[in-house]
Order: sequence, then structure tokens, then C-alpha cells
Amino acid sequence: MASLGDIGLAAAINLLSALTFLIAFAVLRIQPINDRVYFPKWYLKGLRTSPLHSGAFVSKFVNLDFNSYIRFLNWMPAALQMPEPELIDHAGLDSAVYLRIYLLGLKIFVPIALLAFSVMVPVNWTNDTLKRSNLVYSSIDKLSISNIPLGSNRFWTHLVMAYAFTFWTCYILKREYQIIATMRLHFLASERRRPDQFTVLVRNVPPDPDESVSELVEHFFLVNHPDHYLTHQVIYNAKKLSSLVAKKKKKQNWLDYYQLKYSRNQTERPTKKTGFLGLCGSRVDAIDFYTDEIDKLSKEIELEREKVIKDPKSIMPAAFVSFRTRWGAAVCAQTQQSRNPTTWLTEWAPEPRDVYWNNMAIPYVSLTIRRLIVAVAFFFLTFFFMIPIAFVQSLANIEGIEKAAPFLRAFIEIPFIKSFIQGFLPGIALKIFLIFLPTILMIMSKFEGFISTSALERRSATRYYIFQFINVFLGSIITGTAFQQLDKFIHQSANEIPKTIGVSIPMKATFFITYIMVDGWAGCAGEILRLKPLIFYHLKNTFLVKTEKDREEAMDPGTIGFNTGEPQIQLYFLLGLVYAVVTPFLLPYIIVFFGFAYVVYRHQIINVYNQEYESAAAFWPDVHGRIIFALVISQLLLMGLLSTKEASNSTPLLITLPVLTIWFHHFCKGRYEPAFIQHPLQEAMMKDTLERAREPNFNLKEFLQSAYIHPVFKGGDEDSESEAMSEEGEQEPVLVQTKRQSRKNTPAPSKHSSSLSSPLHESADKHLRP
Amino acid sequence: MASLGDIGLAAAINLLSALTFLIAFAVLRIQPINDRVYFPKWYLKGLRTSPLHSGAFVSKFVNLDFNSYIRFLNWMPAALQMPEPELIDHAGLDSAVYLRIYLLGLKIFVPIALLAFSVMVPVNWTNDTLKRSNLVYSSIDKLSISNIPLGSNRFWTHLVMAYAFTFWTCYILKREYQIIATMRLHFLASERRRPDQFTVLVRNVPPDPDESVSELVEHFFLVNHPDHYLTHQVIYNAKKLSSLVAKKKKKQNWLDYYQLKYSRNQTERPTKKTGFLGLCGSRVDAIDFYTDEIDKLSKEIELEREKVIKDPKSIMPAAFVSFRTRWGAAVCAQTQQSRNPTTWLTEWAPEPRDVYWNNMAIPYVSLTIRRLIVAVAFFFLTFFFMIPIAFVQSLANIEGIEKAAPFLRAFIEIPFIKSFIQGFLPGIALKIFLIFLPTILMIMSKFEGFISTSALERRSATRYYIFQFINVFLGSIITGTAFQQLDKFIHQSANEIPKTIGVSIPMKATFFITYIMVDGWAGCAGEILRLKPLIFYHLKNTFLVKTEKDREEAMDPGTIGFNTGEPQIQLYFLLGLVYAVVTPFLLPYIIVFFGFAYVVYRHQIINVYNQEYESAAAFWPDVHGRIIFALVISQLLLMGLLSTKEASNSTPLLITLPVLTIWFHHFCKGRYEPAFIQHPLQEAMMKDTLERAREPNFNLKEFLQSAYIHPVFKGGDEDSESEAMSEEGEQEPVLVQTKRQSRKNTPAPSKHSSSLSSPLHESADKHLRP
Repeated sequence: MASLGDIGLAAAINLLSALTFLIAFAVLRIQPINDRVYFPKWYLKGLRTSPLHSGAFVSKFVNLDFNSYIRFLNWMPAALQMPEPELIDHAGLDSAVYLRIYLLGLKIFVPIALLAFSVMVPVNWTNDTLKRSNLVYSSIDKLSISNIPLGSNRFWTHLVMAYAFTFWTCYILKREYQIIATMRLHFLASERRRPDQFTVLVRNVPPDPDESVSELVEHFFLVNHPDHYLTHQVIYNAKKLSSLVAKKKKKQNWLDYYQLKYSRNQTERPTKKTGFLGLCGSRVDAIDFYTDEIDKLSKEIELEREKVIKDPKSIMPAAFVSFRTRWGAAVCAQTQQSRNPTTWLTEWAPEPRDVYWNNMAIPYVSLTIRRLIVAVAFFFLTFFFMIPIAFVQSLANIEGIEKAAPFLRAFIEIPFIKSFIQGFLPGIALKIFLIFLPTILMIMSKFEGFISTSALERRSATRYYIFQFINVFLGSIITGTAFQQLDKFIHQSANEIPKTIGVSIPMKATFFITYIMVDGWAGCAGEILRLKPLIFYHLKNTFLVKTEKDREEAMDPGTIGFNTGEPQIQLYFLLGLVYAVVTPFLLPYIIVFFGFAYVVYRHQIINVYNQEYESAAAFWPDVHGRIIFALVISQLLLMGLLSTKEASNSTPLLITLPVLTIWFHHFCKGRYEPAFIQHPLQEAMMKDTLERAREPNFNLKEFLQSAYIHPVFKGGDEDSESEAMSEEGEQEPVLVQTKRQSRKNTPAPSKHSSSLSSPLHESADKHLRP
Repeated sequence: MASLGDIGLAAAINLLSALTFLIAFAVLRIQPINDRVYFPKWYLKGLRTSPLHSGAFVSKFVNLDFNSYIRFLNWMPAALQMPEPELIDHAGLDSAVYLRIYLLGLKIFVPIALLAFSVMVPVNWTNDTLKRSNLVYSSIDKLSISNIPLGSNRFWTHLVMAYAFTFWTCYILKREYQIIATMRLHFLASERRRPDQFTVLVRNVPPDPDESVSELVEHFFLVNHPDHYLTHQVIYNAKKLSSLVAKKKKKQNWLDYYQLKYSRNQTERPTKKTGFLGLCGSRVDAIDFYTDEIDKLSKEIELEREKVIKDPKSIMPAAFVSFRTRWGAAVCAQTQQSRNPTTWLTEWAPEPRDVYWNNMAIPYVSLTIRRLIVAVAFFFLTFFFMIPIAFVQSLANIEGIEKAAPFLRAFIEIPFIKSFIQGFLPGIALKIFLIFLPTILMIMSKFEGFISTSALERRSATRYYIFQFINVFLGSIITGTAFQQLDKFIHQSANEIPKTIGVSIPMKATFFITYIMVDGWAGCAGEILRLKPLIFYHLKNTFLVKTEKDREEAMDPGTIGFNTGEPQIQLYFLLGLVYAVVTPFLLPYIIVFFGFAYVVYRHQIINVYNQEYESAAAFWPDVHGRIIFALVISQLLLMGLLSTKEASNSTPLLITLPVLTIWFHHFCKGRYEPAFIQHPLQEAMMKDTLERAREPNFNLKEFLQSAYIHPVFKGGDEDSESEAMSEEGEQEPVLVQTKRQSRKNTPAPSKHSSSLSSPLHESADKHLRP
């Protein structure tokens, strides 16, 4: 058991490392050469141009203004300055609401900590149970529930506190749900015309021997929505085409590179070998070679495109159907169309950039089977993931390697190498698995058949949270693999399980405090340093970047990463709620985490991350639900703990808490969740009427015509794409523009946009200057 | 343990008693005097007139045609003769589908029994485990799984059989779900114009300081459904008014009685006393007295009615909104109207006669709180209902009575009375509770705020099933009150619970066989005898019936009673599925029950029951879900049983069964349930188009005007009501008429209807003649 001093030391070490990261960040970020690593969002928005093109040579790479080094924590207030509405404009509602999760943590835990320290800590401290027992104990334990004698009346304090904490958490949760529902509705209402407001995705169009999918869709909606149907777009199966286009793009890039090389050094034409990786084969003129290749591919693409468009088999039984009014679309999205509830399935179309094109044509039966398979696979992944890892570990020992590859024996037998392998190899298998876990979960979600990236990420987040809850939270408390736990739980009675876990909880407080400092504090500081993107960018910039476009791609701004980030935060909510009553000493660490992470992620969202989609905070019901889950778990564990403390007469009072909490969840679900799923007709009608009055002659059909075209058909070659983009840009009203242009590879309309929305960006510029 | 002989004896006794009931029924039903007890449905439909008015005096009361006594089982083929489509016309889809539950039982269990007897019984029989053990065992146990030695390979047979039974049950369930979904859609589609097809119930209209509810509703729907809104009807809070009307009706009845009395015997005018129950007070002329009273009440009613209509406070924040087209109504019922998802809640309006008027104005928050209260109350009812009963039992002993009422001592001390009290009284408290249980559950559902009788009955059925599952099924197996079970389960590990129950299952087979014979066989025969309605009818007819209308009311045809009947059937499904693998000897008893009950209830539905509403088989998802639940329970118990038989290596194979079954449930839910909840737009549009072509000038507004008026406003006084009814009758098309007239107190249009739909009724008449 760690003493207060030990924890203080650990805190000091972690604070120091966090501080080192922060200083490194402060120094690195003001170097012009790193500008694209630490401010990619502004580049993508076209509001910042490369510093490489202007100024003295040295100052292009190194910041010589030493004053700026002194104010090295300046980014913090800068990150906090941008007001929320501007943040929503700048980075989207998803990001703004994501930040509110951290704020929610502060709102819940600061008052809880104050109350706990003013009431519960004195109650715990003024006992001498631990002193009189001959157990080894630490000062932290003196502050915790362990210091209360068995059957003491002082447990009433904890009971009352459990009620107080629950009510406070529920109150804050309800308030936040309300705020975010309002924000979402306001966001959706204040947006200007967007294609997805008028469009519904229709899936599982039943096959018809006489009509093509396109005709069938048109007839069906002309008959069943005669006053509202406007147009539709069929969905092509363009997997082969997109691979061809990707191939061509790569070759085009090489061509650009060689042309650039040639233009710099006109003396010799660049050559390359045609074989594997350019290492073997006959040597040819590179520019001619790639020009030929591209020509060939262009023809192939043209053929394939024609084939896809003409061949009825390449049309998937799904379509994007657009309506004259938002009302019409809202009606169609929310109603059942046909007798057979598995055909003509309609749902609100996701944003065009949010569409996950590969899952459009999965029939109903296949969908339910996939769901079953994924559920079973996830169960095995969660509970049995240690088995293959243990297998790999058993193989990856010295003897195994020597047997498999005898020629390495001499090398392995070097003592340093040997100890390295013995020490690290077993851990590496686990580490690699944990690194790939989010990807594995994402693949599962894709297999399950969701049709938008946002839905994929939401589902992955849920799975990741479950995995973490079982393998990190429970795994740390009842040390043992998840499968051993499962086995234990199955063989234990229902009221023993909370006891088993509850008893171990106070003992694990120091472990989790360390965990919070390492994973939370240092992790956040590491996040802001962006070490990996920094190294990769410079590596790419030195060795791979051939053209300006390459450099832009090398930036890799990344996204918030909802599927991994949110479950991590939720773990802190869980820890905070579980330990609030048991060991309140843990709370300040969580509060520091939430505060620090809020500042860091606000900075990152403003300057770095580039969201790939905008779901208008559709993830909030998940966030809410998981906090409720944590609350119920904390109540059950407290019940288990108290029943071992001979305070079991409090059980009836404690069992009402989860009942009330679950009821509260149902209440909130009914009250607020529809705002995240359904689309009120009143709102739709209001917007329709307003718009009709404002722009009576707007040609909606033209506006919607090409909104939901597979990106391959849009971006066949670069010119036509950027043309299409700028056309789109002109068609669209001012406010939306920022969003459109946050797409990659669209540097063209930057001036245009900065001139249009200058007040906003000027204020945003303030945050940029170091 | 009962031997085969014992069971045979019990079977003989029960068969005998069932046969006695049947013979009594056969004799009683052909007596003209009982005609109204055994054929009330035909009276209510107006297709049969009282035999009291025609023929010789004796033959009015006693059947003298002795040939008819010989063919005493004739009603059975007669009940089976009516084809299903005709049955749907005659008694509604609800009743026809309700009968299919019994058929479903036959479809599931007949093949299972055949398979079990041809494969499993020989496998069980050809062991001598029981013989070699020195346990007391019966011949039935030799047929059961108990006869297999521990760890034998023969358990593979049971495993394979469990798979076979599961797949067969699921196959039949899926097929049945499909058939019933089709029947429902067909029924809804083939129906002629009905008010509820065009009408949506809007609840939680938000308060508005400037507009009345009526104006608010009109404006809201004119704005948000401009092309479809037609009209609306506000809902009045008419509780006081309805009690006044009921009072007046009673007095009117007395007046009729005295007038009849006076017309028969003109010599003296009838008198009555004004005091309590006509026993004390001053004697007055009865006819004058009631005429005065009725006049007074009429005036009061008139005043109250005006007050209700004028006073804006008596208008509830809810309304029935009607649309021009079915399409418009389908859209409105399925979409969210307003930003705030707890206001302007729309749902498909129930049939006018199905509306439960008292629950119209419950706000959202109150609704969720009520749900919580009912859930908690139901939990306590299920697990702690023995406590108050035990309390009553402890009071209701000899000493208690003697203490409370010393004057009864002499009476109680008579030995016969004493033993009677000691023997019966404790049981009576429990019996009374069980008799009132459905009523208690119904009150709970009413408190919970459902708005249609059908929904009330469905919810009560679910609760009744849970109560029976815990207190009858589990209670019989693990003998002990539900609370003791709960306590046991909490203190037992998750894999011990199925074992504990599983082990006791084979031992309880004989008990359940007896239960099936007593409750199922004899219960059915008792049902057809209708002893209670028979006695009550004759008692009422002799003492209370004053007018012809009274006699009609004394008939009390009753309804199927979905809320009690269906859970009873489900218990048999549960028993059948649980014992199919364990003790197949139980199956024939269940098959006999299903077959016999099918014939009995088919007869009752054709001749007796008078459904109060038509929900178009909306209850099927519940039926399906409960059978799935029984299937999963049976699989879990088998798993528990086998794991005690040292056949635990079969566990992984058995655990996949519930997983697959639950997946199957989800599949069916997605595939068929929407047909029972939502309303496809395609269907609505088709009907709309057809109807517009057929009757382009139909005045829909007039048709809908008075459809959803509180019965009190319709039936203010009898004349106006019957006028309204016959008007309605004329307005409505031919096919619906039968349904309308199945309402009580509408003898008038009988000839009218029989002349209109004679072919149907002629064929139906066949079933009537004994």
C-alpha cells in the first residue's frame, strides 16, 4: 500500500514528465518548420499558407523571436478564448459537444469533491480502526471508508452522500442533455440548405423482373409520395472503379514528381526501373512511362465507368431519394413504406461525406446474421483475447525462436539481445493487440453493416467501452483475465459479486491514482505534443514529399477519434463515481485530468483536428447512457462493500438508488433522445415556409442532382473534381463554406472564403499567433 | 412418486368429471330457457329472438325433442365447421387469432410428441439406472431422463432432441407469425371505411395562454399538415356527467319496471319507500316518484353537459385529429410533431369503442412516474403477496374471531362449524386474492395510463404471465414462496440456479400432469358449462329482471378475457417445452388440452363471447415473445439438469441454443413486428386511391364528425342514442354493420342486418341448431 508520500512522488514524476512534454510542445510549436504539424486545421481551411515561402532563410525553420519562448504557456488562454458559438462554426458541433464531455466531468466532480472533503474525509479520518488493527495501511486508507469500524453508525454518512452524489450527477446530466438537445436542434435549424435535409436513404429495394432499380424507385415514390417526391440517385457498386482511380492517382503523383525533378534539373531525363519497387526490371524514361500508364488507366477507367453506369447489375438495390421539401423528407424517413417491413427501408440520409458506401446493399436477413456473428465474435474477443496472445507469447520465447530459425542462434545468444527478447517480447504481443484493438472493433462495426462513418464510430466506441470496463476496470480490481472473472462470477451468487468487487475497491485506489496520472495527465500532455505526427511529417517531408499536394497529405491532422477517445473519458467517470464515496482522495486527480484535458483538446480541436463528418452531436445519448451505467455500477459496488462492513441494514435504502437511477435514465430517454433520432415536422415545415418565402425560385433539383454521387464519379480526374467543388462552393451560401472546404485537397477556394468570412477568421487568427 | 396406475386413476377421475360437465352442458344448452346463456352472441347480433315468445308453454322452458339429447356431442363438429374467414366476419380477427394460439400448441407439440415417443422414450426406457438404485421410483420415471445413468453417452440423444425441438418450434413460430401478419394486413386492408383509419390521437397538447385547446389543435395541424388536416374533436373531462347519466339510467329502469307492474295490475298503483334500499322512509307513489327524479336528473344532466361543453377547463389537453386521407393519418401517427418530444404526441387512434376515456390527459412526467410506481408495486405484489395473506390467515383463526367478536363464540364452538373454519378459512384468503388478482393487475394497468382497453388487457396479460411463471411454475418446482425463491437465488451462483431448478424438474412431472388435468381438462369443460353465468342469469331473471332490456343485460356473454386466458395457455406452452426433453410422457396431456380447449373456445367464440373491441390481433407479438421466453427457459433448465448428470461437456453445445433462439426472436421482431405497430404508407395510399375512384363525392367530414364523441354525449338519453346508432348503421357500409351491432342494447336494427347479410347468417344459423 502506497503512502501519501509515495503518491506524492508519483505525482511529482508524472507532473514533471507532463511539464517536459508541455515545454517541448511550447518550443516546437513556434518553430515555423513544425507549423504544419501543430496548425494543420488552418492550412486545411486555407487560412494559413506555408511559412516556407516567405522571410529569411533561417527564420523559415527556426523561430528567432526569443520573447515568444518566455510565454510558453500562452496557448492555454488562447485555446480557452474562442467562444463556443465560434467554435461550433470553426470545428463543427460534434467537436464542441465533445469538449463539453470534459466540462461535464468538472461540473459533476468539483462539487462532489468539495462535499466529500468537507464531510466525508473528516468522518473517515477521525477513526482509529486501522491504527488498532495490525494491518499495514497507508495515510490514504485513513481517508477512505476502510477506516470506519465494522457496523458503525458512521456509514449513514456514506449512505447520505451516495444519495447526494447520485442526485447531483442526475441533475447535471439532465441539464446537460437538455442543453445539448437544444444545441443540436438549433444547429440543425440554423444551418442553411444542405442536401441531406431533403434526402432519404432507401435500402432493400425489392427486385423486380420488369423494371430497373431506378425506374422502380421513381415509380414507387411517385405513387406513394406524389406531392413531395423530387428526384433520386441510384447507388453504383463502384469498388473496382475506385481502386482504378486510386491507382491512377498514385501514378499521377509519381508523374508530377518526375516532372518537378526534370524541371529543376533539365540536363537528364529521370528514369526508373519497371520491376518490383523500382529495384529490378528494364530502365525506362520515367515521364514517358508514367504518361503512358496514366493514359492506359484513364481509358480503363472510362470503360469501367461506362460499364458501371450501363450495366444494371452494378446498380445496388438502394437509392438516395430527394424530396421537394424538408417536410416530405422528414415524413418519408420516419414512416414505414411497404407492407413488408424489410423492404423499402427508409432512413434519414447521412451527410454526403459521412456515407460509408460499401454497406449500402446488405439484405435484411444477412444483416441480422452479421449482427449475431459480430456479437458472438465480440464476446470471444472480450473474454478470450488472452488465449491467442498467450499462445504467441509461448512461441515467442528464446527456445522457440532458436528452433524456428537456427541461423539466428548466434545473434540471440548475445546476452543483451537475449535479455531484451526475454523481457520485452511477451509484452509486445499484448501491446500490439491493444494498439490494433480499435481497428479490430472498427472492422467489426463495418462488417455489421452501418452506413455512415459516424454510426461506425459510435458502435466501436460502445464496444471499446465494454472491453475497457471488463478488462481494465474489473480486470484491475479482481486481477485475472476476463475469462477467469467470468468463470468466477458464474460460480458466485448474485449478491456475492458486488461484495467481491466492492471489498477490493478501496485497496485499488492507489493503483488507479497512478493510472490516472500516467494515462490521463501524461497522456494528455503527450497528445498535445503530437510526437508521432511530428516525426512522421518530417520523415515524409524529407523522403517522400514530392509535390505540394503530398505535403498537404503528409500533415495528417487526424480527428478527435470518438471511437477511442470517448471510452477513455468514460473510464474516468466510472472511477470518479465509484471512488467518490469510497476513497474521495482520488477525486482531485480526476478533476485535474478533466481540467487539463479540456484545455488540451480545446487547443487541438481549434488548431489540429479535422473532423471527417458532422453528426450534430448524435453521440450524446451514448455518452449519457454510459455515465448512467457508471452510476449504477458505483451504487451496486457500494452496496456490496457496505454489506461486508456489517452495515447491511442499509441495503434496502441503497437498492432504491439504482432503481431510481434506471428510472431517471428512462425518463431522459423518452424526454430527450427523440431529438437525436427523429426529425420534428414542425421544424421542417417552419424552415420550408421560410425558405419558400425567401427564395421562391430556387432550383432545388439542380442543387440536389449531384449531391449523393459516389466520390469516384466526382473525382475521376483532379480537374473535374476541383471544378465541381468550386461550383459547389459558389452554389452554396456563405456559412456552410467553411465546412465544405475542410475537405482535403481543396486549396483553391481559400482566398474566396477568407474574404467572405473575414471577421470570424480574424478573430480566429488571434489564436494562431504564438 | 405416482405410478402409471395412479396417474391413470387421476386421468380417469378428471376425464369423468369433464365428461359430466359436457353431458350437463349438452342437456342444459338445448333447454329453451337457457338459450340466452348459451347463445348470447346471436341475441346480441339480433339473429335469434327469445324462445319465450313462441310455441307451447312447456316447450318454452324444457326441450321435449328427445332425439336432440342423443346427439349430445353434436356441438363439437358444429363448432369446427365454421370456416375461418366466416369466423373472422362473425367474431372479429382477435377471436379468430386467439383460437390459433391453441392450434399453434397442437402444431408444435404433436410432432414433438411423436418424435419424443419414437426416439427418446426407448432410449430412456432401456436403462436400468433406477432399478439398480434403491430409490423409490415410478413407471413414469422410467420413461424420463432420470433413468439414464450419470455421464452416459445417451445424453447426446437429448441434446440432439433439444436442437430438433427448438428448430421445429422456431419454424412453426415463424410460419405462424408470417400468417398472422398477413391476416392482420389483409383484415385492415379489406375493411371498409372506419373512423380510426383517418384519425390520430394527439396527447399532451401544450398549454397556451391565448388560445383554447381546440383552436390550438386546429392551428397546429393546419400549419404542419396543411394538405391533409380535415377536422378534430376535443376530449371532454366527463367523469361527473357519466356518473349522472348512469344514475338516470338506473332510475329510468325502475320507472320502466313500475310502469310494467302497473300495466299488468291496474288495480293499485305501485308504491315504494324513499329511504335506504326502499326499506324505510315515507311511502310514495313509485311512478310519480321516479318520473320526478328523472326529470330532476335530466335537468341536472343538461346543465352539466352545457357546463362541460362551455367550460374551457373541462377540455382535456388531447384531441382526436382526423385527416382527409389515410395517408395523412398514417404520416401523422408515425412522425414526431414538435421540437419537444413530450408534447404533441401522436399515435394511431384506437377504435372508438376501444378508447379508455379516463387516461387521456396524463402529462409526460406523471406518466413516467406512474410507470415507476407500478413497476415497484408489481415487484412487491409478485414477491411479497404472501405476507398480507399470511397476516390475514393468522388473524382469521378461531381464537382471533372469538376475541374480535365474543358474541359469536357459541356459534363457532359447534364442532362442525369449527372444523369448517379451521379447514377453509386460511385457504380462502389466498383464494380470494387469486380471484381478484386479474382485477388488481387491470387496475395497475389503468393507473399506468394506457388509452385503449386492448392495450390495458395486453399489459395485464404480461403481468399475469410473470406472476404465474414465478408463483405457479417456479413456486411448484422449488416449493416455497416467491420471496424465499428470490432470497435463494440471490444467494446462489448464476450457474447453480438452473441446476437447482433443473434437478427438481423430473420429480415434478406427475404434479404437473395432475395440474394439467384439473386446470386444463376439467377447467375447459367447466368453461363451456358456464355455471356461474347460468346461475346468475336465472337468479337475475327471476328476481331482478324488470324489463326486456334488463334481460338482455342479464345475459352477460363475457369476452375471451385475453388478460387471464392467454397467460394460462402460455403456462401450458412452458410446461410442454420444458418437459419435452425431460419427461416426454407429459406431452400427450398437453396435446389433449390444446385440442379440447380449441374446440371448446371455438364453440364459445361462435356462440357466447361478445368482444368489446377489435385490435386486429395486435397481441400476437406478445404471444410470440412469451413462447420464445418459454423456449429459452426450457433450454437453460435442460442445461442445468444435464450439468448435474455429469454430462457437462454438452454445455457449450447447449449454450448456443438460447443464443440462437434469442437471435431468432430479434429476427422475427424486425421482420414481422412492424406490421403490428406501424402502418405502411403504400397500403394507405392504395386504399385512398381506390376509394377516391369509387366514391369521389363522399363527405368524409360528416362521416368523421361524431365518431370520437365520449359515449356520455352520445347516449344522454336512450332515444337519442338509439337514433344515433341507427343513423350510424345506415351511414355505414354493409360489412361493418355486424360489428357495430354487437354492441349491447341495440336490438332495433336486427332485421335490417339479417336481411342485408343473409347468406352469411344462414350458414351461421346451422351451427346454432342443436
